Amino acid sequence: MKTHGFAATAHNKPLSPFSFDRRELRANDVAIEILYSGICHTDLHTARNDWGITAYPVVPGHEIIGRVIAVGSEVKARKVGDAVAVGTMVDACMTCDQCRRGEEQMCRTLPTYTFGGHDRVTGELTQGGFAKHLVVREEFALAVPKGLDLTRAAPLLCGGVTVYSPLRTWKVGPGSRVGVVGLGGLGHLAVKFAVGLGAHVTVLSRTKDKEAGALALGADALLVSSDAEAVKRAASSFDVIIDTVPYKHNLSPYVSLLDIEGTLVLVGQLGPVDELNTFPLVAGRRRIVGSPSGGLSETQEMLEFCARKNILPDVEVIRLEQVNEAFVRLDRSDVRYRFVIDMTKFGGAV
Amino acid sequence: MKTHGFAATAHNKPLSPFSFDRRELRANDVAIEILYSGICHTDLHTARNDWGITAYPVVPGHEIIGRVIAVGSEVKARKVGDAVAVGTMVDACMTCDQCRRGEEQMCRTLPTYTFGGHDRVTGELTQGGFAKHLVVREEFALAVPKGLDLTRAAPLLCGGVTVYSPLRTWKVGPGSRVGVVGLGGLGHLAVKFAVGLGAHVTVLSRTKDKEAGALALGADALLVSSDAEAVKRAASSFDVIIDTVPYKHNLSPYVSLLDIEGTLVLVGQLGPVDELNTFPLVAGRRRIVGSPSGGLSETQEMLEFCARKNILPDVEVIRLEQVNEAFVRLDRSDVRYRFVIDMTKFGGAV
Repeated sequence: MKTHGFAATAHNKPLSPFSFDRRELRANDVAIEILYSGICHTDLHTARNDWGITAYPVVPGHEIIGRVIAVGSEVKARKVGDAVAVGTMVDACMTCDQCRRGEEQMCRTLPTYTFGGHDRVTGELTQGGFAKHLVVREEFALAVPKGLDLTRAAPLLCGGVTVYSPLRTWKVGPGSRVGVVGLGGLGHLAVKFAVGLGAHVTVLSRTKDKEAGALALGADALLVSSDAEAVKRAASSFDVIIDTVPYKHNLSPYVSLLDIEGTLVLVGQLGPVDELNTFPLVAGRRRIVGSPSGGLSETQEMLEFCARKNILPDVEVIRLEQVNEAFVRLDRSDVRYRFVIDMTKFGGAV
Repeated sequence: MKTHGFAATAHNKPLSPFSFDRRELRANDVAIEILYSGICHTDLHTARNDWGITAYPVVPGHEIIGRVIAVGSEVKARKVGDAVAVGTMVDACMTCDQCRRGEEQMCRTLPTYTFGGHDRVTGELTQGGFAKHLVVREEFALAVPKGLDLTRAAPLLCGGVTVYSPLRTWKVGPGSRVGVVGLGGLGHLAVKFAVGLGAHVTVLSRTKDKEAGALALGADALLVSSDAEAVKRAASSFDVIIDTVPYKHNLSPYVSLLDIEGTLVLVGQLGPVDELNTFPLVAGRRRIVGSPSGGLSETQEMLEFCARKNILPDVEVIRLEQVNEAFVRLDRSDVRYRFVIDMTKFGGAV
């Protein structure tokens, strides 16, 4: 099917209007009209070719809320009119050990990413959610629970599940003492989820500037991580710390804040971190772990948790034509806390 | 009671004969004649004041096998003549959450270390196992199971439990794929324990030199970690890697060898490690953890496991008078794989 959106065509050019073909519906596919698309740092990194692997033109976007407009002949779980959600992947082998246990994001053959991936049947490059329509196999179009505000839900699909998954993996619940480092798209959702799970939540921030914002999100406290005395007093007082900082930094202060057998979860930085002192790890059986988004069933579980607990991202809704301006602001962390593109306002000729 | 042994008196002097008093028996104490004392790197670090915290004179030694020669009035579980084992600690608060769950080595007030600690009643400095006698509260004198060769068992008390504990914590058993980095006192026991637990065990070494030694210990294979092609082929093929290397090094190659959700356990280095790339941690939910020896009940469990499986350290038995020469050789890793001092050969006037 024909569709259109915005694509990056070179690392140094703004995104611009782009018409292209989605694949025709296969038997187990659904076609979706995209209603809302979140903007994630990965979109910016890809458009700018920060990782050196971008194939142009690329339509970014992997936080997608839409409505089913057609279904393939064998589709069972979705029907026309359903509100659905698509995240960072649109296919996987579905047969390896990871797919079989519901961790499709760690598929042994790699999942097919929503953009910049290769279709598993035709090999063609996949294109993302900054567009009017999308075609995916039905398992990857999750059900949006009744009551979840479609306008604000999109960032749950990448930013959300990326922090929800480790909170579940490391068994955060009532009584857990959770720290969150970095109060951006991921961090603000980590706060809301941890609060929703019943934890005592502290935002760790270099300055006191974010205190009002942190408390408004439901956090119980803010710890100024540049205050050596305060950090010392808080030693060994966290069960889980979610570190969403997406650049090279020093993990040692956070490790020292963990209690015995506590866990520092890295979800932001993909690359180097500073030299690390192992002493607090060894002395207290502490852990540094990474976490890679979530699988389909865990993402579905998160959507239902959000509907039940009335948890939604704080978003700034923009039009697709504003995406380049949004990228500039995202790059300087000038958004509270996530941009969502209202694709219903996007017209233009196909 | 009066006793005598060898002590370090300054950072740059050899250990020399030293007479001193052990405390008189309290109601819940046992007095022990020391039969064998293992030599651990910590003894060397302490004698040389490598960590800047040594109080001289210090009698090192925290891998102790002995026989009970007297018991306090309230001692129940030990009697004169019992073979007993004492490790890195001789007391703890026994009331904090860690002590209550049997992790006395992580006591919230710190355990009383076998040497260089402060007696919890009198405050006097504790002295270790390079001596003829020892007095400890009965819980810290573990039972040596029948059939365990007393001559070789001492290194289990620190080196042994330090690697046994993480193998149990991370649920190594039949089918587990275990890697061991560093084939010294700790590493060679990690190999034996992992084999005894039913795992497939690979020694990771920079050269092929240690292959025969590794296979003789029961390892299934040796992977040459400087062979980039071999390392690449082995990517994602380990569940647990025990890293016993006691100096600054690069963890990233080992993280990449871990399978999804695999665990790199640090037990050797207490200090900095090189800059780390987080990508394999995040992509595969992999973990870097530390591990701090074991508690009393886990150490007892290990002794029984060793007796049942006939696992013992490979040792070189020396006399106490040879300890300074042994320190020199230990410092250049010239021992297969642990020195044990035969204290029954040590006479001299008290």
